[in-house]
Amino acid sequence: MSTDKGLVVVALGGNAFLQKGQKGTVEEQWNNVVKAMKQIADIIEKGYRVLLTHGNGPQVGNVLEWMESLKERIPPLTMDFANAMTQGWIGYMIQQALSNELKRRGIGKHVVTIVNQVLVDKNDPAFQNPTKYVGPYYDEETAKKIAAEKGWVMKPDPRGGWRRVVPSPDPIGNIEKDAIRTLLENNFIVVASGGGGIPVVYENGELRGVEAVIDKDLAGERLASLVRADYFVIVTDVEGVYLNFRKPNQRLLRRLTVSEAEKLYEEGHFPPGSMGPKVLAAIRFVRNGGKKAAIGHLYKALDVLEERAGTTIVPD
Amino acid sequence: MSTDKGLVVVALGGNAFLQKGQKGTVEEQWNNVVKAMKQIADIIEKGYRVLLTHGNGPQVGNVLEWMESLKERIPPLTMDFANAMTQGWIGYMIQQALSNELKRRGIGKHVVTIVNQVLVDKNDPAFQNPTKYVGPYYDEETAKKIAAEKGWVMKPDPRGGWRRVVPSPDPIGNIEKDAIRTLLENNFIVVASGGGGIPVVYENGELRGVEAVIDKDLAGERLASLVRADYFVIVTDVEGVYLNFRKPNQRLLRRLTVSEAEKLYEEGHFPPGSMGPKVLAAIRFVRNGGKKAAIGHLYKALDVLEERAGTTIVPD
Repeated sequence: MSTDKGLVVVALGGNAFLQKGQKGTVEEQWNNVVKAMKQIADIIEKGYRVLLTHGNGPQVGNVLEWMESLKERIPPLTMDFANAMTQGWIGYMIQQALSNELKRRGIGKHVVTIVNQVLVDKNDPAFQNPTKYVGPYYDEETAKKIAAEKGWVMKPDPRGGWRRVVPSPDPIGNIEKDAIRTLLENNFIVVASGGGGIPVVYENGELRGVEAVIDKDLAGERLASLVRADYFVIVTDVEGVYLNFRKPNQRLLRRLTVSEAEKLYEEGHFPPGSMGPKVLAAIRFVRNGGKKAAIGHLYKALDVLEERAGTTIVPD
Repeated sequence: MSTDKGLVVVALGGNAFLQKGQKGTVEEQWNNVVKAMKQIADIIEKGYRVLLTHGNGPQVGNVLEWMESLKERIPPLTMDFANAMTQGWIGYMIQQALSNELKRRGIGKHVVTIVNQVLVDKNDPAFQNPTKYVGPYYDEETAKKIAAEKGWVMKPDPRGGWRRVVPSPDPIGNIEKDAIRTLLENNFIVVASGGGGIPVVYENGELRGVEAVIDKDLAGERLASLVRADYFVIVTDVEGVYLNFRKPNQRLLRRLTVSEAEKLYEEGHFPPGSMGPKVLAAIRFVRNGGKKAAIGHLYKALDVLEERAGTTIVPD
């Protein structure tokens, strides 16, 4: 292994754990994670220190469905708990698969997952305007009954049926950042801020969980900036950031200054629930002093980091 | 806060999270954990460094029931995953509640939970003789169908109905011990080895999860010995170790040498699924060089540690 090339935060998208068309058997999940971790091992082998974060959409969806299905018998847990459970689930897979891959390559580094709370502002306007669909689908009548019963906000999902919507507030801090920093300084590979982190607020000076979902790329940026990472890489199932995505005139953007990226972002080129928050997270990282942010395909992670693939966003 | 009084590993029993007669609502769980963490904060305030571990019986039971209830639609996960999920769930509660309590007392210490794999021997005879009941109750016919389908071992539970039984192998190592040690050395309060740890074996030099449940007190001892803790305290819902427990002539044992404890243990005074493994864990800790092990009531945790309550086991 070569000398230290700097600290990189890698945010893993859903395709690291579940591929399109899969049902999500244990075997499928391990296959996906093992494959994803080869990409991460390539980065580590090249001499970078790595802090990993990850999404949890399908997994937290399963947890919410499980809890709802037995709600008459087992009191369902709130969304902060559901997130915490997926951090254990996914962190375990990453930790084991990446350790095995590093050992195979003779790299004596340890991988460790932190159960991680991410701070949001209790006055974030998102709490007045929940937008994130979560959990099971209901018919309208059941949905309205649940809304009256539990005080949940229920809305028709464009994908069909009615679902619960929860706020998606902006991450402003990371509660366990000192532990994460200590582990990084001591040469560990750390998994943190999983699924955007367990959402918490300060209330009368004390931490309290809230029913919300934090965007995992924005939470990843917050953490990357807090630990003063050199690079922030978001890997997903597309090649990078496109103009006119999926239109005849689509064009992959290979390299942008942060000002160029901001201009395109503000012009509304990137859809909210999808490429939008990724580009915003990349912009924030560079504005907060990061050397480079990159967005690209999971299976080209090292190439994306080293600008041979994907979209790179650099300081002006 | 006074000067360093040494490192103590505290193993929390089920009553720290769920009390008898409760259904386990989120509110009940927080109340229980907040109350338990006051006990832990007392220990920290007195000047001890603390590493926490905990049981997960009812919680992993819920996870297994949830997964079974939707198994036709969502592929159920294996027991290593179920354990990992409860580590996130319970670790989150401990981490938040203990942080808040320490802050209230003006103690500037951070609490952090590690997703933690515990090593067992794949040739452990326990794998040939599963004894630990887990998950939902079935009628005999359904149980036998499931046994044939999945290759699970199903047995009649003395509490009624048929259930799955899984092996309870002996913990021989802790995979993330270096990370735990690093965090302790840097003044963090660490939560690890939850629910006995995620059970893993080495197979061809690689880690692999197994369908098993490790006793949380034995896994706690393994970790306590590996990090060279000074003290190991097991807190539960009884006052300590009794002779003739719940008989007219019951007697609380206040102080035993490790040889005395071994003699009583070998004579069969302590029931297997209950006080037995606690006494065995305490014996092992002292035999492995620990200064003192103690067993007593959760709500007297500091008194148990300082020998004003509970049962103390000391070197000969």
